[in-house]
Amino acid sequence: MVHRLTLTALPGIPLVEPGDDLASLALRALAQAEVRLEEGDALVFAQKIVSKSEGRLVDLATVSPSARAEEVGRQAEKDPRVIELILGESAQVVRVRPGVVIVEHRLGFVCANAGVDHSNVRGPSGQTGEWVLLLPRDPDASAAELRDRLVRAAGVTSLAVVINDSHGRAWRNGTVGVALGVAGLPALLDLRGRPDLFDRMLQVTQVGLADEIAAAASALMGQADEGRPVIHVRGIPYPLREGTAAELIREKSLDLFR
Amino acid sequence: MVHRLTLTALPGIPLVEPGDDLASLALRALAQAEVRLEEGDALVFAQKIVSKSEGRLVDLATVSPSARAEEVGRQAEKDPRVIELILGESAQVVRVRPGVVIVEHRLGFVCANAGVDHSNVRGPSGQTGEWVLLLPRDPDASAAELRDRLVRAAGVTSLAVVINDSHGRAWRNGTVGVALGVAGLPALLDLRGRPDLFDRMLQVTQVGLADEIAAAASALMGQADEGRPVIHVRGIPYPLREGTAAELIREKSLDLFR
Repeated sequence: MVHRLTLTALPGIPLVEPGDDLASLALRALAQAEVRLEEGDALVFAQKIVSKSEGRLVDLATVSPSARAEEVGRQAEKDPRVIELILGESAQVVRVRPGVVIVEHRLGFVCANAGVDHSNVRGPSGQTGEWVLLLPRDPDASAAELRDRLVRAAGVTSLAVVINDSHGRAWRNGTVGVALGVAGLPALLDLRGRPDLFDRMLQVTQVGLADEIAAAASALMGQADEGRPVIHVRGIPYPLREGTAAELIREKSLDLFR
Repeated sequence: MVHRLTLTALPGIPLVEPGDDLASLALRALAQAEVRLEEGDALVFAQKIVSKSEGRLVDLATVSPSARAEEVGRQAEKDPRVIELILGESAQVVRVRPGVVIVEHRLGFVCANAGVDHSNVRGPSGQTGEWVLLLPRDPDASAAELRDRLVRAAGVTSLAVVINDSHGRAWRNGTVGVALGVAGLPALLDLRGRPDLFDRMLQVTQVGLADEIAAAASALMGQADEGRPVIHVRGIPYPLREGTAAELIREKSLDLFR
């Protein structure tokens, strides 16, 4: 048997507006691509369209920066109104340098700018102004809701949904896709205690499967437009189970690099 | 047009021994999978089989640990002979904790244990003893050699080769595939200065494309055996060019997390 992992960018997803129904958009696009959901399939949604559908847009004209935001804004050489939003989304500021604010997001992961995004963002239809986009309030819950809708519509029992975003890394250039929200997939694959080929215990023991799927989808999504924000994935070579993006977050006490 | 990224695990790759010809093994496996290489395709090779084919196996009985290796071994609670090999492969030790040695590898990237691997490793055919496996001496050169061989055999002009490995991350649980060696692929995709959909300049500007491809392949390779160590990739939605894994290494002066 030949193992194959196939990622298909669903065609015809329009620019998403607050209130849009992503499950319906995905189902229509699946039909257009002539892909029928099967047991074990996954869909990866770009964070950006999930956030937009959930109305996570903020008009910068409505933001009054605090004294702290003004101060961090000076260090980071960034708009203090954007900093105010970043601080509001963060549990802790990890590093500030010109152009960079690294934080622990309130959801637990470490990332740049708390995921507050300025590019490819415009306000709700017909509204002018300078808008930014925050991450979904609860990406795991967003993923679970999408999964439940898709499972019901497709008449399958086992389906995964991942919400992905592009994150920088501590020591490597370039962003890679990571999983912000997960439903129906082992985010972390625990191989601890499994013997290796030669009966020694495996050294590499936990695999960030949802991050690898998120990265694969990200390679196909592209970055400069929103043309391919939903990716269908077939052939994940592991059984699905319930899962959460929280599995991927290193406990602070075990983190050597804060 | 529907964009599709298809990863195929090449079947029938045997356990690799020092001196084995990976290009020939891959070509035979491609024929067996009835995949004909096309312009723009990529092959991803697991580091482990590249290292083995290059004879990067070391018998621990032949290693005499230095005083420094004994000391680090005590801190890390690891075999000082393994530490000796790790230090020999490293430019700098970044962190030591029980069970963990994080180093800057002599190739420039930061990783655990300098990639010195103890699991799924046995000695050359017929030899007993306790063996470990080092990373290829020059993974970019290994990738380029494989690419050149495959390009000639397949009669195409544009083909990518990636050598991948599983790395831990600073703040996230689980390993993900990353690119150790690259030929014929933009390791880093530079989108700086490209306008976004709404004519603002893109905020996320450099994408670790080779790492995303490496992660996708890693999801299909699995971990517990060597059954799927070569992955064929079709449909990378960017033009190929020359590239090197060095593009992915953050310059030390820009690194906030050492």
